[in-house]
Amino acid sequence: MEKSTNIIDCTIRDGGLVNNWDFSVEFVQDLYEGLSAAGVEYMEIGYKNSARLLNATEPNPWRFLDDHFLKEIIPEKKFTKLSALVDIGRVDPNDVLPREESVLDMIRVACYIREVDKGLELVQMFHDLGYETSLNIMALSSVPEHQLIEAFDMVKKSPVDVVYIVDSFGSLDPKDIEHQVNKFKDMLPNKQLGIHTHNNMQLAFANTLTAMRNGVTFLDSSVYGMGRAAGNCNTELLVSYIQKASYEMKPVLGVIEKHMLEMREKWEWGYIIPYMISGVLNEHPRVAMAYRASDERDNFVDFYEKVTSPESTIAPASK
Amino acid sequence: MEKSTNIIDCTIRDGGLVNNWDFSVEFVQDLYEGLSAAGVEYMEIGYKNSARLLNATEPNPWRFLDDHFLKEIIPEKKFTKLSALVDIGRVDPNDVLPREESVLDMIRVACYIREVDKGLELVQMFHDLGYETSLNIMALSSVPEHQLIEAFDMVKKSPVDVVYIVDSFGSLDPKDIEHQVNKFKDMLPNKQLGIHTHNNMQLAFANTLTAMRNGVTFLDSSVYGMGRAAGNCNTELLVSYIQKASYEMKPVLGVIEKHMLEMREKWEWGYIIPYMISGVLNEHPRVAMAYRASDERDNFVDFYEKVTSPESTIAPASK
Repeated sequence: MEKSTNIIDCTIRDGGLVNNWDFSVEFVQDLYEGLSAAGVEYMEIGYKNSARLLNATEPNPWRFLDDHFLKEIIPEKKFTKLSALVDIGRVDPNDVLPREESVLDMIRVACYIREVDKGLELVQMFHDLGYETSLNIMALSSVPEHQLIEAFDMVKKSPVDVVYIVDSFGSLDPKDIEHQVNKFKDMLPNKQLGIHTHNNMQLAFANTLTAMRNGVTFLDSSVYGMGRAAGNCNTELLVSYIQKASYEMKPVLGVIEKHMLEMREKWEWGYIIPYMISGVLNEHPRVAMAYRASDERDNFVDFYEKVTSPESTIAPASK
Repeated sequence: MEKSTNIIDCTIRDGGLVNNWDFSVEFVQDLYEGLSAAGVEYMEIGYKNSARLLNATEPNPWRFLDDHFLKEIIPEKKFTKLSALVDIGRVDPNDVLPREESVLDMIRVACYIREVDKGLELVQMFHDLGYETSLNIMALSSVPEHQLIEAFDMVKKSPVDVVYIVDSFGSLDPKDIEHQVNKFKDMLPNKQLGIHTHNNMQLAFANTLTAMRNGVTFLDSSVYGMGRAAGNCNTELLVSYIQKASYEMKPVLGVIEKHMLEMREKWEWGYIIPYMISGVLNEHPRVAMAYRASDERDNFVDFYEKVTSPESTIAPASK
């Protein structure tokens, strides 16, 4: 089973949610070189959303990926394929070239369960343009079973290559993951499965291993865990632990040593108490992220009281 | 099953391996209060080794626990029981009072597999003095099966209450833990089992949950993970995640907020690349700890090359 494993490194895409994609070209190039040398199969180099649709006034090359720019900074593809993520309603189909004219190999579509129909329309379009595709259903821990069944009836008929189990809130444990994977396998026997975890409860790596051992073949991760709030499963753990001859830990260590320690000084992600609390409570991390950006950032007891109080004013209105 | 769970917080004992037990009395008292309010069943308040046998010249109250001192700083026992760890050949039986004259409730004996006979002699003595006892077999990941079988023949006949699975090197994953627990259960049907994990690969919490779900009832942990090298399973994760009415997260958050952030600035433990590497390689962390204390501390590629080189001069001669 482990022979067919694919790692998708999301450092730029999910890590960009930490630092507003403030990555240097040198870092992205070093990361691409390092991942290729490490045998990592895919690198998600950002979002391919539309600056116009998001009313963005500042340039943000890793959030609004542009093929001409990408060709400049990665003039020669190495081992690692490139992927981009898009959000429903934020991607302009006119921005997407046919695959043979693009450096991208895969386009992944993130959606909530209620938008699966829209997500699959995008998938169909990217598939017809020649891309590998995935559908990443977010906030899975809050999806009622019947909604999942309805959604899967549509997914089954779609050409989508990979369907992802996304633990957006970092609230699932290995037992939950095993249950979800088995449900997905039963309902989608003709699809490959993917897993995207968050590390709120220090379970991202364990959850990813559990998914892999139950047949999931696409594993998302980030170097040094860099991703929103508590971050993701660590790429260096996957390449060092998974028994696949092509994986090498050393090039990933080189990226960490050269870049990530300094970045971690500047920006914050990882096991941090308010994120742990939001994971345990199965809540979106946005409230905890706002708290960490305030002067009260280390008042953990106060934070816990606020988010668990029935009269909470800082708890999110909806997930 | 989860009703009979016992958490043993090892912050002082295992955390002392990080800071040479440089804990203030105020911290230890706050920790005891916090753990009692959180419903944590045991606090391991240090080692009960002999300063004389270790030729120690400096006082070190949490390493060489003394009953008179303990009674002074914890004049009134609350919910949480107290335990101490001893090492083979380092404990002087004359230092140990009968339980009814001591504030300690449990004495745990750490040993390597080759010393199980000596460990069980100590267990018998502490048992006869009225203490709860455990035998903690270290470095389990390197123990051949036949040695374990021989050792267990002795353990079965001993009055020891709890037998621990100790992942000293942080090299085991949940599948390994399940295998070990099932082996221990088969061979020691009349004993309660315990688990002590290290977090080198971010698997300490997942491994502890796996052990619990397979019937292990004594779970070691530390507040904010404070323990040697990569540290231990986090107490705050256990009390927030395990469904047991008496567990409360808030008092543990209070201890973290008041003490642990500052302590983590001063002393180092947790997910740190050289410790991750020693976990993956199933090595004692001492080489990585020496490296972290040197000027080369962040040269991860160099460290990896040194410890994996066949001519390595810094790899440990033995485990």
